[in-house]
Amino acid sequence: MKDTVNIAIAGLGTVGIGVCKIIQQNADLLQKRSGKRIIVHAVSARDRSKSRGVDLSAARWFENPTIMATDPEIDLYVELIGGSEGVAKDSVEAALKAGKAVVTANKALIAHHGNELAVMAKKYNAALLCEAGVAGGIPAIKVLKEGLAANSFSDVYGIFNGTCNYILTEMRKTGREFSEVLQEAQDLGYAEADPSFDVDGVDAAHKISILTSLAFGTELAFDDVYIEGIRHISAADIEYADELGYRIKLLGIARKRADGRISQRVHPAMVQKESPISAIEGVFNGLVAEGDFVDKIVAEGRGAGEGPTASAVVADIIDIVQNRDLPLLGCDPDDLITMAPVDIEERYGAFYVRLMVLDRPGVIADISAILRDNKVSLESLIQRGRAPGEAVPVVFTTHETEESFMQKALLAIAKLDSVIEDPRMIRIESY
Amino acid sequence: MKDTVNIAIAGLGTVGIGVCKIIQQNADLLQKRSGKRIIVHAVSARDRSKSRGVDLSAARWFENPTIMATDPEIDLYVELIGGSEGVAKDSVEAALKAGKAVVTANKALIAHHGNELAVMAKKYNAALLCEAGVAGGIPAIKVLKEGLAANSFSDVYGIFNGTCNYILTEMRKTGREFSEVLQEAQDLGYAEADPSFDVDGVDAAHKISILTSLAFGTELAFDDVYIEGIRHISAADIEYADELGYRIKLLGIARKRADGRISQRVHPAMVQKESPISAIEGVFNGLVAEGDFVDKIVAEGRGAGEGPTASAVVADIIDIVQNRDLPLLGCDPDDLITMAPVDIEERYGAFYVRLMVLDRPGVIADISAILRDNKVSLESLIQRGRAPGEAVPVVFTTHETEESFMQKALLAIAKLDSVIEDPRMIRIESY
Repeated sequence: MKDTVNIAIAGLGTVGIGVCKIIQQNADLLQKRSGKRIIVHAVSARDRSKSRGVDLSAARWFENPTIMATDPEIDLYVELIGGSEGVAKDSVEAALKAGKAVVTANKALIAHHGNELAVMAKKYNAALLCEAGVAGGIPAIKVLKEGLAANSFSDVYGIFNGTCNYILTEMRKTGREFSEVLQEAQDLGYAEADPSFDVDGVDAAHKISILTSLAFGTELAFDDVYIEGIRHISAADIEYADELGYRIKLLGIARKRADGRISQRVHPAMVQKESPISAIEGVFNGLVAEGDFVDKIVAEGRGAGEGPTASAVVADIIDIVQNRDLPLLGCDPDDLITMAPVDIEERYGAFYVRLMVLDRPGVIADISAILRDNKVSLESLIQRGRAPGEAVPVVFTTHETEESFMQKALLAIAKLDSVIEDPRMIRIESY
Repeated sequence: MKDTVNIAIAGLGTVGIGVCKIIQQNADLLQKRSGKRIIVHAVSARDRSKSRGVDLSAARWFENPTIMATDPEIDLYVELIGGSEGVAKDSVEAALKAGKAVVTANKALIAHHGNELAVMAKKYNAALLCEAGVAGGIPAIKVLKEGLAANSFSDVYGIFNGTCNYILTEMRKTGREFSEVLQEAQDLGYAEADPSFDVDGVDAAHKISILTSLAFGTELAFDDVYIEGIRHISAADIEYADELGYRIKLLGIARKRADGRISQRVHPAMVQKESPISAIEGVFNGLVAEGDFVDKIVAEGRGAGEGPTASAVVADIIDIVQNRDLPLLGCDPDDLITMAPVDIEERYGAFYVRLMVLDRPGVIADISAILRDNKVSLESLIQRGRAPGEAVPVVFTTHETEESFMQKALLAIAKLDSVIEDPRMIRIESY
C-alpha cells in the first residue's frame, strides 16, 4: 500500500488556503493520526499569479479543475469552488466517475444533487464526504452519522448561518436596525456583497436539508424546505422578544412528526433565553440533536472561516485515507427512503405578532374576535403608550395552534381599517 | 462475509440494559446504518433471576464473563462490569487475546491499564473502543480522535462528572451546604452510597487522563493527574463566587504548555458566568476542545444514565461492525509519546481565597504583606460586616501567579494568630 496520498485542491479561497496550511503545519501530526503522508499534489484556482500566503510551488497547477480531478496521479479531489452547478458539479462528477475520492465543502451542490452524487459514488466505489458543508468546524455530520448512530432522532435543529447570527446578535446588543448592521457585517467581511444567500435563509436551508437526510435516512429534498430569512426582523421585534423572555435566532429545523412525516424549515424563531440555543451568539453555529436514547446533545463552534472549515475538510480527508468513510448520506443510497414532507401551514406552535394600529376604541376587541373565530388563543398582549387617533404598536403572543389558523387570522387582521401595516409574525419555538 | 454480529454483554446494570433496549428497539435502524444485524447472543451478570425489564430469553447465559468473552460464537465483547481490576480486566484481556473486538464503558480500566490494553489489541488485531467511558452520550472521544483530527490541541477541558455538577448546581440554586445536597443526590440516585469516586474527583480524573492521551498523542499517565474534589466547597464560597462574577465547577483540564509539557488536573474552579462551561448545569457534562485551526468546540449532553451511555456503547459497536474503529488511543500505540508532566505547583493562574479572621486592627495589613513578600498580587478583597474582636470572613482574589508562590503565602497566612481557620483556596480559570 502506498504510504502517501496525493490530493488536489480546486479553489484557493480562505478554505483552500486553510487546508494547505493544516497539511503543511500539522504534517507530522496528520501522518501519526492517519498513517499516511498527505501531499498537496495539485491545485487549481482562477488566478495563478495571486499571492496567497502559502508556498504552493511544489504543487502542480491546473487551469481546469475537471482535468485535475481525473489526473492519474491524484488520489483525492477536494472541491472548494462552490455553487451547485457548473465546474464544481462537473469536476466532482468527473472525479467520482474516475473512482477518485472526493471531499467537498459545497452544501449547495450536495443539497441540490446529493442523491445522484451518492449513487454515483457507490457505482464507482469512490468516497464522497462533505463535513465542511455544515456548521464549519463543528463535526456535525460525523456526530449524526456516527457518534449518535444508535439513536432514532426526533429533532435536529440549530443555528447554521453565522452571518445571520452575527447580525441578530448585534441588533440585540446595539438596538440598531437590520440594514445598518448588515452594512457593518459587510464592512467587516462577515457578510457577502450580495448577502441574499445568507440573510434570506438559503444557506441554512442547504445545511438543514443535508442534516435531515442524515438524521432520518431520507433522500435529500431541498425543495421541501420552507425558507424565510431575517430581513423583516426589526429592532422593535428584538426588543419585544427580550421583554417576553426570548431571543430571536435564525433556526434550521428538521423534525419528525408522530405520523412519520418530516418538517424541514428555516425561519427566524423566538427561543427562550435559557435555552442552550439562545447562548450561541455572534458568528458561532450550534447544532442540537435529540435522539431516543441519548436525549439532547448540543455542539457549538465556529461555523465558517479559514481554520474551522479547513479543519472539517481535513477530517474528511483523514477518514478517507483510513478507509473509514461512510456513504455520503449515512447509509447505502438504495436504503434511503423518500420523505413525506410537512407543509409549513401544518406547523403546530406558538406565535408572536406585531401590529401597527390606530389607537381608537374597539381595535383590540376586533383583533381578539378574529383570533377567537380562527381558534387562535391569546397568551399575552402588550399595548404600550396611548396616542388617541395615532399609530401605536400592539404586540401579542398566542398559545400553540396550527399555522393555517394563524395565517387566516392574520389575513383578516390585515384587512381591519385600524391596522395600518402588514402584521409581522415570528414563530415561537419551545426549544 | 457474515451478515450478523453476535455480541456478548457482561454486566446488566442500567447501561447493559440500555444497550439491550437499543439493539431491540432500533434493530432495523442499526441494520440500515451498520449493514449488519446486531444480536445480543450472550449475557452475564451477577444475578440471573433478577427481572430487568428486557427480554433476554434468546441470549445464552454465562456465569463467567471471561469464558463468555472467548466463546467461539461471540464476535464482540461488551464489558460493563466496571472496576479497574478483577473480572473486568481479566475478561477484556481474554477477549483481546482471542482476537475478539471489545467495547467497554470502563474508564477506570482504561485510565489504569489502557497502555497495555492498546498494545494487546494491536498484537491480537482486535478492536478496542471506550466512547462510553467519557462524558456519557457526548461523542467526546470520536470528536477528538476523528472530528477534530486535523488539529494540534492546546487545551481540552470540561465537566466530566454529573454527580459533582449536580451537587454544585443545587448548592448554588438553594444556598445549601455540600453534605445536605449530597444526601439529597444520594436519595435521588444521582450519587452512589459511597460517593468518594465522584466527589473526590477520581472519576473525572480517569476521564481527563483518557482525553489527554487522545488530544496529545501521549501514553496514559493517570498517576500524573492532580486530583482535588469538591467536599471542601462551602455555600459561602458559592455565594462569593456569584458576587465576583463566577460559578464554581469541578473541571477536568488537560493543557499543553509552550515547553511541550502537559498539565493534567481535576479540581474545583471558578469560571466566568459568561463562559460556555458555566452554562452546563445539573447532571449534564460538557467538553471543550481548543485546536489550532478549529478554535473552540463545545459539546454538551447527558454524562450518565441508561440511554446516553448505552448510545455511546452502541456507536462503538457500529464502528467496529463497519471496520471503522481506530486504535484505542487514536494512533498506533508505538507512536504514543511519553508525557512530560507539569506539577500543580507550576500552575500559573489566579486564585480565590477565603479566610476566617479575628476582626482586629492590622489583620489585612499582615495578609497583604505576606502576599507581597511572596510575589502574589491582590486583585480584589472583600471584608463585609464588622464585629470587633470576633471572627469575620475575608475573601480575596489574586492576579495570575505561580501556584508555588500562592501555597507559600497561604502557609504563612495560616500561621497568623488572627487567622482562625485553614484558608480555603479555589483556583480561578480564565476559560
